[in-house]
Amino acid sequence: MDIIVQKYGGSSVADSQRIRAVADRIIKTKEQGNKVAVVVSAMGKSTDNLIKQAKEINPNPPEREMDMLLSTGEQISIALLAMAIKARGYDVVSLTGSQAGIHTDDFYNKARIVSINSERMKAEFDDDKIVIVAGFQGINNKNDITTLGRGGSDTTAVALCAALQGKKCEIYTDVDGVYTEDPRFVKNVKKINEITYDEMLTLASQGAKVLHPRCVELAKIYNIDLEVRSSFNYNMGTIVKEKTNMEKEIVVTAIAHNLNMVKLSIYGIPDVPGIASKIFGALAKNKVNVSLISQSSGENGTNTISFITSESDRDKAGKVLEATLIELDGKKISALDNLAIVTVVGAGMITNPGVASELFSVMGENNINIEMISSSEISISIAIHQEDCQRAVDILAKQFNLVEFDN
Amino acid sequence: MDIIVQKYGGSSVADSQRIRAVADRIIKTKEQGNKVAVVVSAMGKSTDNLIKQAKEINPNPPEREMDMLLSTGEQISIALLAMAIKARGYDVVSLTGSQAGIHTDDFYNKARIVSINSERMKAEFDDDKIVIVAGFQGINNKNDITTLGRGGSDTTAVALCAALQGKKCEIYTDVDGVYTEDPRFVKNVKKINEITYDEMLTLASQGAKVLHPRCVELAKIYNIDLEVRSSFNYNMGTIVKEKTNMEKEIVVTAIAHNLNMVKLSIYGIPDVPGIASKIFGALAKNKVNVSLISQSSGENGTNTISFITSESDRDKAGKVLEATLIELDGKKISALDNLAIVTVVGAGMITNPGVASELFSVMGENNINIEMISSSEISISIAIHQEDCQRAVDILAKQFNLVEFDN
Repeated sequence: MDIIVQKYGGSSVADSQRIRAVADRIIKTKEQGNKVAVVVSAMGKSTDNLIKQAKEINPNPPEREMDMLLSTGEQISIALLAMAIKARGYDVVSLTGSQAGIHTDDFYNKARIVSINSERMKAEFDDDKIVIVAGFQGINNKNDITTLGRGGSDTTAVALCAALQGKKCEIYTDVDGVYTEDPRFVKNVKKINEITYDEMLTLASQGAKVLHPRCVELAKIYNIDLEVRSSFNYNMGTIVKEKTNMEKEIVVTAIAHNLNMVKLSIYGIPDVPGIASKIFGALAKNKVNVSLISQSSGENGTNTISFITSESDRDKAGKVLEATLIELDGKKISALDNLAIVTVVGAGMITNPGVASELFSVMGENNINIEMISSSEISISIAIHQEDCQRAVDILAKQFNLVEFDN
Repeated sequence: MDIIVQKYGGSSVADSQRIRAVADRIIKTKEQGNKVAVVVSAMGKSTDNLIKQAKEINPNPPEREMDMLLSTGEQISIALLAMAIKARGYDVVSLTGSQAGIHTDDFYNKARIVSINSERMKAEFDDDKIVIVAGFQGINNKNDITTLGRGGSDTTAVALCAALQGKKCEIYTDVDGVYTEDPRFVKNVKKINEITYDEMLTLASQGAKVLHPRCVELAKIYNIDLEVRSSFNYNMGTIVKEKTNMEKEIVVTAIAHNLNMVKLSIYGIPDVPGIASKIFGALAKNKVNVSLISQSSGENGTNTISFITSESDRDKAGKVLEATLIELDGKKISALDNLAIVTVVGAGMITNPGVASELFSVMGENNINIEMISSSEISISIAIHQEDCQRAVDILAKQFNLVEFDN
């Protein structure tokens, strides 16, 4: 008997009717002869409401108590889903993160899973039960409740799949799968049937919101087949795995974009080893997320270092740079606002060096100015002015055949 | 340093403002040099809302899942209250029933506390923290969440006070204390300053809703001073303890009443040993709550047995009696609806046999017909027609000096 792990997000269990629909889907999977473990998020906007209540009482609530509070959202979901399954006559048990044996480190609000003791889950499987587990939560070694932070429930699902040696992990959401671009942003984009972990990781890191990088990373480490599907229909989804179908040889798989970015530069700093690590170490310590980085030589043996960050981190990053400027006796700092990053992703790019030049020339032909470039073996990212973003993505989607053409 | 246990009911923590007020009160108790453990119920009507959600999904939800669901109500309260206390700068920790070491038996929805492992709470006290514990919940030996059923949070508070060897247990609610009758029912009733466990037990069993009999029973067993107070003001409350102030020598302490009762009788059953236990055993097995019982001899060595139950148990009780009638070859069954039970309570009654005759004669003078009588060492209960109840209680309150007279 195979073990299948399914994860349902908040929109999939937003009300009684949705919960019943999810119960049907779980029962169908069980009836196909599988053992089913299900990870559930909090219903709809319930987490937002709890956060609002907390802030009303304490604008700066202690993180431990915040986790105590927020973990109730998933606990409500698992109990209601178990009731819906039982109403259909199937044996089921709901488990909190703690009961499911999910042990985490000590970092409240953003804990990482350390280990999973799957004994209880296996015992429930032996009793032929469907097992429903609260996503997003665990306990630390003080027996206190922790939450896993962003992408938490997806991560719970992949970790459970690894611990239970499941056959695959199905992530149910409100979209049909991973697309070549965000369907709300570009018309006629194609759904991707198969994508590699690395491609998905790059997409997820560069703005595609359907899967969190953390969960993809974990799936890659444990070599778990992920399937992203909609809980609102029975369409095929997107499979994320180590190697995709080799026959197809698609060079560019997808495009992602990130709006509201800013480029910060520091000029005239000494060209000696350790300078970059000094700057980016200070940025990391101040929790500034850095996207693209470039370094170029200036005059008199000095350097210019530029990087892209989000507008929300702009002020924090500026302060770090100002301190660095004084410390390193640099020349000046500059900022360029209203940027977008557009990333083209595809495992096939490793063996196709022509993609980069194709990208640059099509941007040039269309008068889209590139402010910065960064690339990996499977991706190229460019920073452009935000007002050009929609046009750039449309052009690239056509250029790399990522949209369906209307007949 | 003394340990004080406080319990706040749902109305006391119904919104952010109320939660802040409760935090103030807790901090005041801590500032007086005490260690404070606080038991909290779910906010306002949140339990009712969860029950409604569950019934929508499964009209007959599994009890284990119901406890998983309902226990979130108290978990939300403890987290928010801890946040409010921390906002005032005091060290605090919230604990679920499980974390507080509250072990129960296996009966979901109506579990009983088996033992409390107070290690964690004591460690938190050693760290000078205020300890907030979720009422109404515990875990069984399967590590599953259980709830304690009616009166659960009060019971949690008394049990914690026993486990922690607390100095006293303060039960905060939305009334000022225990009154000589329900203030909504009789005008100008007096608040009782002190009352014995047995008096309180009788009152609680006979319709006074301010404390659940279970919690009074537990307080009596562990000899814990209970204080019932309002969380909406700083008035003195009612102290429940083993012996009240002997100087006062109040004969009748209070009156309680129960509406919507019915009297059922079975006639012509054999007068042999074991008949009563047969009938009441069958009633208990069918979960019929019996209030008063009387047995009288009929003709030809047969007996009549009557008892009072609530209207909601009428049909269940009727079926049991019908089966008994056939089995015992009895004569007939009768029912008398629309009754009220009025109970007069007072530890002083043991040494004052005149109270009963005083009660009967004042009822007779006022043309109030008594359908049934039952008494204990500290109480006398009478069943009367419901339409006479208000008048009877008013008369008795005056007769036994339980109301303040207007000047």
